[in-house]
Amino acid sequence: MDSNLKQYYDFVENGDKIYLPHFTLECVIFGYENKQLKVLLTKLVGIGWGVPSGYVKREESLTVAVNRILKERTALDNIFLKQFHTFGDSKHRIKPQEYESGIDVSMTKGTWLAERTLSIGYYALMDCSEADIKLDVFVEDYKWVDVNEIPKDLLLDHNEIIDYALMTLRNQIFHEPIGFELLPEKFTLPEIQTLYETILNKKFDRRNFPNKLLAQEIIVKLDEKRNIGQHRSPFLYKFHKENYENALSERTALVL
Amino acid sequence: MDSNLKQYYDFVENGDKIYLPHFTLECVIFGYENKQLKVLLTKLVGIGWGVPSGYVKREESLTVAVNRILKERTALDNIFLKQFHTFGDSKHRIKPQEYESGIDVSMTKGTWLAERTLSIGYYALMDCSEADIKLDVFVEDYKWVDVNEIPKDLLLDHNEIIDYALMTLRNQIFHEPIGFELLPEKFTLPEIQTLYETILNKKFDRRNFPNKLLAQEIIVKLDEKRNIGQHRSPFLYKFHKENYENALSERTALVL
Repeated sequence: MDSNLKQYYDFVENGDKIYLPHFTLECVIFGYENKQLKVLLTKLVGIGWGVPSGYVKREESLTVAVNRILKERTALDNIFLKQFHTFGDSKHRIKPQEYESGIDVSMTKGTWLAERTLSIGYYALMDCSEADIKLDVFVEDYKWVDVNEIPKDLLLDHNEIIDYALMTLRNQIFHEPIGFELLPEKFTLPEIQTLYETILNKKFDRRNFPNKLLAQEIIVKLDEKRNIGQHRSPFLYKFHKENYENALSERTALVL
Repeated sequence: MDSNLKQYYDFVENGDKIYLPHFTLECVIFGYENKQLKVLLTKLVGIGWGVPSGYVKREESLTVAVNRILKERTALDNIFLKQFHTFGDSKHRIKPQEYESGIDVSMTKGTWLAERTLSIGYYALMDCSEADIKLDVFVEDYKWVDVNEIPKDLLLDHNEIIDYALMTLRNQIFHEPIGFELLPEKFTLPEIQTLYETILNKKFDRRNFPNKLLAQEIIVKLDEKRNIGQHRSPFLYKFHKENYENALSERTALVL
């Protein structure tokens, strides 16, 4: 037997000695690239496309587990992440064996992997270009997909999980440092406006949008320009960290 | 063997045929009474005080389960509730057998109940006087406790769960119909002000507070007064449901 297959069999037969059964962590990883908000999809061997996920070890905290799962898949540490919802309502989560018609379940039938699992959803933010996506015996491929072009036939309830994560991201943009996480340290006014327009999927006025950010003093103009062509060298800005965080506190909110 | 003890033994021995192991639902139930924000605490037989909780049946959705658990305990249907966080980080949730020193675990040792559980936290809002709290073989007592007087030694991580629920309630007061759920349909201006002051644990100006609510048109003055003594008959108000819900939408927020 080749070592990959042996590793796979061992996980099916004995995984529950290491991992807790009955729930997984699902990670919706958002990245921002070429003016697009993207989600990382991974392809599980023999199962199909979905978001990265993993099991929690028997003596591991949830927070340690989600950071480990993200690091194993992206090679990144200290990722911005938030738990957003635990899923246990869809038919896929209640009677998985009846709704996995596209999946060959002969190998897992009767094992711990055939049982019902809840999913604890986290969303994460990262720079696509910084992530170094790792494949392994369980994951054979990956792609970053524009949030407007997510395939409708992801495994289990992963479409619902992405939709919920996106709704949460759009709501939390007024309360979490999402711009800070997805933009480079220094940016132009069109760059920050495009980021918020892309995430919220709406247009803001070219004059009012920067004026509102400047009026709230959450961005600061730098004495520095970026040269992007003849006669085109817009000023650079950065976040005023303290004012930005105050504007994000739950009882006020960023005004866009 | 008496029937209670038999029922208890049966749950310990065979409960995992009916219920999923490894996670429970914890319900932080807030009520408002006599100008106090209160939480329902229940006493588990042989274990101690905490918030009401329960297991999910093997073929039950999370949402059905939490409504069932709340109904079994309070006799109420259609309770306002929100999932707010899943807990799996505290030492009590990782190695329960080592941190339950005050509890006699001899009966559950080696059974499904001795294993690690995650907790999916929900908060609920109800009128204390409408709830008809049921006791049973597992729960021997209950009390409604002011949020400022919660005992520090609740079982497992229930103190942390209540703190998190209270923080969530205070943040969501700007986004969820919390006033609507906790006040009677018709109320006086001092009554609604006291509710918000009690939940947020801060004082608002007697003149500005009602003026802000009236300016946002989220409350409506009725042509009706309450007689509370000689020369004292304040006007009654009610929520303007549509304006209130608009003000609560995530992208704006109630202004207090």
